[in-house]
Amino acid sequence: MKFSREIELRGHIVDSGILAKVMDCVVEYNGDFETEEFNLGRQKTDPSYARMQISAETPEQLTQIISELRRLGVLVTGEAEVTLQNVIKAKVAPEGFYSTTNHPTYIHYEGEWIPVDNMKMDALIRVDTKSHTATCAVQGKLLPGDFVVVGEEGVRVDFPERPREIGVFEFMGGDVSSERPSKTMIRQIAKELLQIKESGRKVALVGGPAIIHTGAADAVAAMIREGYIDVLFAGNALATHDLEYSIFGTSLGMDLRTGELVSGGHRHHLYTINKIMDAGSIYAAVQTGLVKSGIMYECIKNHVPFVLAGSIRDDGPMPDVIQNVIEAQDAMRKHIPELGMVLMVATLLHSVAVGNLLPSHVKTICVDINPASVTKLMDRGTSQAIGMVSDAGTFMPLLLAELRELSA
Amino acid sequence: MKFSREIELRGHIVDSGILAKVMDCVVEYNGDFETEEFNLGRQKTDPSYARMQISAETPEQLTQIISELRRLGVLVTGEAEVTLQNVIKAKVAPEGFYSTTNHPTYIHYEGEWIPVDNMKMDALIRVDTKSHTATCAVQGKLLPGDFVVVGEEGVRVDFPERPREIGVFEFMGGDVSSERPSKTMIRQIAKELLQIKESGRKVALVGGPAIIHTGAADAVAAMIREGYIDVLFAGNALATHDLEYSIFGTSLGMDLRTGELVSGGHRHHLYTINKIMDAGSIYAAVQTGLVKSGIMYECIKNHVPFVLAGSIRDDGPMPDVIQNVIEAQDAMRKHIPELGMVLMVATLLHSVAVGNLLPSHVKTICVDINPASVTKLMDRGTSQAIGMVSDAGTFMPLLLAELRELSA
Amino acid sequence: MKFSREIELRGHIVDSGILAKVMDCVVEYNGDFETEEFNLGRQKTDPSYARMQISAETPEQLTQIISELRRLGVLVTGEAEVTLQNVIKAKVAPEGFYSTTNHPTYIHYEGEWIPVDNMKMDALIRVDTKSHTATCAVQGKLLPGDFVVVGEEGVRVDFPERPREIGVFEFMGGDVSSERPSKTMIRQIAKELLQIKESGRKVALVGGPAIIHTGAADAVAAMIREGYIDVLFAGNALATHDLEYSIFGTSLGMDLRTGELVSGGHRHHLYTINKIMDAGSIYAAVQTGLVKSGIMYECIKNHVPFVLAGSIRDDGPMPDVIQNVIEAQDAMRKHIPELGMVLMVATLLHSVAVGNLLPSHVKTICVDINPASVTKLMDRGTSQAIGMVSDAGTFMPLLLAELRELSA
Amino acid sequence: MKFSREIELRGHIVDSGILAKVMDCVVEYNGDFETEEFNLGRQKTDPSYARMQISAETPEQLTQIISELRRLGVLVTGEAEVTLQNVIKAKVAPEGFYSTTNHPTYIHYEGEWIPVDNMKMDALIRVDTKSHTATCAVQGKLLPGDFVVVGEEGVRVDFPERPREIGVFEFMGGDVSSERPSKTMIRQIAKELLQIKESGRKVALVGGPAIIHTGAADAVAAMIREGYIDVLFAGNALATHDLEYSIFGTSLGMDLRTGELVSGGHRHHLYTINKIMDAGSIYAAVQTGLVKSGIMYECIKNHVPFVLAGSIRDDGPMPDVIQNVIEAQDAMRKHIPELGMVLMVATLLHSVAVGNLLPSHVKTICVDINPASVTKLMDRGTSQAIGMVSDAGTFMPLLLAELRELSA
Repeated sequence: MKFSREIELRGHIVDSGILAKVMDCVVEYNGDFETEEFNLGRQKTDPSYARMQISAETPEQLTQIISELRRLGVLVTGEAEVTLQNVIKAKVAPEGFYSTTNHPTYIHYEGEWIPVDNMKMDALIRVDTKSHTATCAVQGKLLPGDFVVVGEEGVRVDFPERPREIGVFEFMGGDVSSERPSKTMIRQIAKELLQIKESGRKVALVGGPAIIHTGAADAVAAMIREGYIDVLFAGNALATHDLEYSIFGTSLGMDLRTGELVSGGHRHHLYTINKIMDAGSIYAAVQTGLVKSGIMYECIKNHVPFVLAGSIRDDGPMPDVIQNVIEAQDAMRKHIPELGMVLMVATLLHSVAVGNLLPSHVKTICVDINPASVTKLMDRGTSQAIGMVSDAGTFMPLLLAELRELSA
Repeated sequence: MKFSREIELRGHIVDSGILAKVMDCVVEYNGDFETEEFNLGRQKTDPSYARMQISAETPEQLTQIISELRRLGVLVTGEAEVTLQNVIKAKVAPEGFYSTTNHPTYIHYEGEWIPVDNMKMDALIRVDTKSHTATCAVQGKLLPGDFVVVGEEGVRVDFPERPREIGVFEFMGGDVSSERPSKTMIRQIAKELLQIKESGRKVALVGGPAIIHTGAADAVAAMIREGYIDVLFAGNALATHDLEYSIFGTSLGMDLRTGELVSGGHRHHLYTINKIMDAGSIYAAVQTGLVKSGIMYECIKNHVPFVLAGSIRDDGPMPDVIQNVIEAQDAMRKHIPELGMVLMVATLLHSVAVGNLLPSHVKTICVDINPASVTKLMDRGTSQAIGMVSDAGTFMPLLLAELRELSA
Repeated sequence: MKFSREIELRGHIVDSGILAKVMDCVVEYNGDFETEEFNLGRQKTDPSYARMQISAETPEQLTQIISELRRLGVLVTGEAEVTLQNVIKAKVAPEGFYSTTNHPTYIHYEGEWIPVDNMKMDALIRVDTKSHTATCAVQGKLLPGDFVVVGEEGVRVDFPERPREIGVFEFMGGDVSSERPSKTMIRQIAKELLQIKESGRKVALVGGPAIIHTGAADAVAAMIREGYIDVLFAGNALATHDLEYSIFGTSLGMDLRTGELVSGGHRHHLYTINKIMDAGSIYAAVQTGLVKSGIMYECIKNHVPFVLAGSIRDDGPMPDVIQNVIEAQDAMRKHIPELGMVLMVATLLHSVAVGNLLPSHVKTICVDINPASVTKLMDRGTSQAIGMVSDAGTFMPLLLAELRELSA
Repeated sequence: MKFSREIELRGHIVDSGILAKVMDCVVEYNGDFETEEFNLGRQKTDPSYARMQISAETPEQLTQIISELRRLGVLVTGEAEVTLQNVIKAKVAPEGFYSTTNHPTYIHYEGEWIPVDNMKMDALIRVDTKSHTATCAVQGKLLPGDFVVVGEEGVRVDFPERPREIGVFEFMGGDVSSERPSKTMIRQIAKELLQIKESGRKVALVGGPAIIHTGAADAVAAMIREGYIDVLFAGNALATHDLEYSIFGTSLGMDLRTGELVSGGHRHHLYTINKIMDAGSIYAAVQTGLVKSGIMYECIKNHVPFVLAGSIRDDGPMPDVIQNVIEAQDAMRKHIPELGMVLMVATLLHSVAVGNLLPSHVKTICVDINPASVTKLMDRGTSQAIGMVSDAGTFMPLLLAELRELSA
């Protein structure tokens, strides 16, 4: 193999499996490696170190391999600076632009390694050449004149080492199972949530309408009132069903206290939307006393912000729903930097959307009755995710009970 | 159409949909009908009555149609007596034998309509010509000399009318949904269970090993101790994991109080089987003090009978497990006549097996995290079944709490 | 019971189960009925007729019951005319407005029964008092001055009788099963599709991105090219992955011909969006030769219209995607009147959205690997729906093969 | 840490992730490690080598850790010989017996490392002290006088290194996804199957009754006839439905060529069992011409052995079904040593049972419409497993087509 380049790796690279991933990657893309130096941490707390020569048959192949390795947190010896290119046309990135991971990322620019703000997956790195700062930006927001990183040279990623301390995110991390002790897990999730709150970071709930249908609305409303949830991401359906429950006591016409369909109940759904439309907003409906309980009520009373994102399934939609999906993403994005944990309950659409915006350090809990939804959410690159195949209607009341017990 | 026969229908035949089913059936098999008399109950409590002439092109076709109609509870005018034939060879029924439904069934024999005992689906009717009694018998139990009903003539079925009173089995009956208010439903299931107990009938639990893995063992043990469950149907796995939990605190090596895998825990499963094997039986293991808690412990302490049926997945199996599947069916069958309700939780195999043995009047609750399992159980002809897509680990503790609250 | 009203029912009201539903409904809402006249069709082709007195304790209760019965197609004797009320404020309907079913609906207005156009579920009836016409309108489109039907009086619904002829929609209708002979069902779906085409009505495909991931893109592209599909409803993801497949041969970086991830393939997704953004539209990308094959290519080449509706999950999105969800609904709605059949494949979001817009006579086929998705789609009130739990990657090629064989 | 022991590791221990697993394990059980020597293979084909000192606070803890490490293939320096103990009572193993993995295993006995035959998971090692041979034995077969390995000392496991060559088992290994290019995967499975056959090893099919219901029976029958399947593992249901299809053209009364229920078809199932019971065996039924086609027919005509294992769901069961589950396991076990691949299609029960018997080198393909079933099968420790969430009715015909094309 004629073309080669030296890389370095530091940290818990063996037990975190990063060294294995690096070797795999080289082999997969038909390259070769030669270990020039290797020190295995003598004790479990010691970091290890590896220096390797990566080689390939052609320069293109070498570039490819090195590009993949960079995403694993490898340091390339003699790393050049990032290449920047100008955006010519709004929303069109220069050819060969760097597409991001959701891990902490640094660029080598004018002699320094500067961090990239607001990391999310599948975006670009926009560099402010004056202030020497870099931000993660989505394609649709690019404007002519923006400087964007092109190629992989000069970009370094901190691939998350698997945490050592044993917590629920560690022992469960990446695992989806319906065969776990449910109450034990709920208790551990409650503990983590309280720790996040104590550390000053915020907890978001991403919720689907099944929260209301399965009778979990009272528990969620209490969680908001008692300060366990700081932001709500949902859609027209959750809000409508919650307000229907508040105004009529039903959800899609079913009396949630008896489980029976109510005469004329099929109209409640549309009548609710109409009443809110008439009030002008959910806020107004709470102020005028039309709405006196429920998830949306507690959000407004307790100043918990919410983003209701529109979807093509929507009836109405209600005045608070953001009909333009890109504007809805923007509205959600504002709340991301302060989050430490996201509970994703019974909605694949909104959970994937929020997951797309999250940096990898935010802990996520995915709860859905459908194992395929849980798996899909867990596959999206969050290193600290727990999946539970469970029923919102039994999960949320039990979570509330644990939170109260642990807080008492 | 040249060949015809008169039938009669009585009862809530319109609102129960039976008349519609009869018409459908005639049309499906290319017959024709002519209504000779029809009285629609004037008020909702009044029964209706219909007399119809069913006709077909050939006698065979007519026989076919009438045969299908009989299964819907139709009375054939001038119904002849049943035809009996002798079994010649053990386990081999005479050609053209009558195969049963799980509904109440009567045979026209020597001038009387006599009821068939122990109804279950997919079996035969064996007639004791001396005592003038009839029993539902499975093929594998036929002996030379037995008299078996052949053909459909002289057999009448009481097709279950849909009940009028509103209970959870009525409003939910036949429906499988993960979008129901879970706690409301659990409360209603608890109410029905208590009513069954009060009426003197028994409640069986059919349970899979996920009851232990999901941490519901304590709740189930309490349900047995507190008298809510009268019979347990399960397999080697539930018993082994329950005993492992009792002896080692783990289930398949996972500590159920922390959710973590325990060092060497993979051996607990086999070690448990070995200890019970050494004790000689679960009963002995309880008597000697080896087993001090859990589902099996409570069964033995509270004289709740159990049937552990073997399966080809079994490790061991434990001494109490019935390795021959037909003997296991026989053992289960003994408990069927006294049952009023069956809770089927987290096991498709055992639930289908028990479902096969039940007459249609026994109420069944099917709880599984997998909607396909719930649907499959609901499709098996029980007219009074409720399906819940839920997690045993959250469902059972909540059910126990409701039972206690309602009993208090 | 002191308050009563007379109703009439005509047609195959017994075998279609409508009479049973009517009785059920009266009983459920604590009313009573008395049959004044009943003629059961003497032969299977004859319609039946019923005249009944419905009574209740209070006028409100009677109104409720009659309102429910109207939705079942009952004719109320001496039906008054519809009540119209003015919309005062845009998007706000008058209190007590009539909310629609998706069945053919008529209003009694100025002495005539006039049909309502563009029926869909959960909408309102807007009446043009000058032209004496009525249309189904969604709340969000109401303008001040519009006349809207209020209450249930004067509204009649043609509840769909279950069809008599035996076709795949009849024998399968309403049933979701993974235990059907797949190839037999696919052949029957192919036959129905060809019949729809022959009758001059159109076939729409609602498709999710799994069509591409599972390797069904070639089959779907061929179906469009060969004229089996007339309209495509999808989202940003299907279009992006299809175009990625066309440009790079991959779908989310996976080579669809080998199933392997390609080096740097994770970028293809964003690079595809960028290229289309640069071209300005999918149409432009086809014209300039950037895109030379695939689903979107065939749509453009064969003048098959498509609607790409935005969602909050979208990366990009591509220029052709309608970012405002209500505008996306409007764009879809234009194609609804000409449809005879809708194939819904591997997308719950778009399928529910399209299902919301359909009148009940349009035949729908729901194919998804997730039985819960299929069930959810089947529950939405389409009387002529078939659900198949199957894999798009094996289903679509087999459907194409059947269509070709039957067309040959 | 006061107690310590030296271990060695050789092979592709880094890229296979074994070194990471070893470190993890030490940390998890609160031990410590110190690396005394480490050579990372300089090139990708070179093996690596590690020598480490493992330490713990107590001797018990050290034993625990070393015991876990042994299961990962670690060589313990100065490994003593295995301890053997006598079985005193049939089916009861000596306390502390060694429980097996499904990987190649060796015991250090009288100065030699001797291999253990017939490896399977969750069994014991029985040693023939005269012939110096060792076999994997299940607890239920232990007899007084047998020598069994006790403790972990002297047992070495070859933990499977992840294979380097890229085949479908490598790129897909361990992954369950419904979003893979189905036809591409089916082609690759076909290639692997043909390679297994060419290498002289055998292919088993483990099949459930859905093979018949979904219409895949013809394809499976052809696969047997054309020599692609060498052994069949199934239950009473598959055989009964297959024979019903052969004798009556139906499966549970549904005509598989039209998908419609046939008049009186509900009896076909029992009538089939009765006919085979009368014939005496499936073999006899084929010989007398009663059965002229289908899966069981082809097995008999082509001398493909089958094991029909009983379950408590069984009707009948047919004479060929082994009613005792332990005898059924024994019957299956006879075919295991010659297997190179197992296709598990649409049956969780039988697939888990067969999976329990397999050594880890046998390749397995799990196909089920239920993703949870596929996941469960993949989790059972087979290192070379592929999961496909697909429909037997579309999968099997496409697999047959690929096999034929590749064989042509």
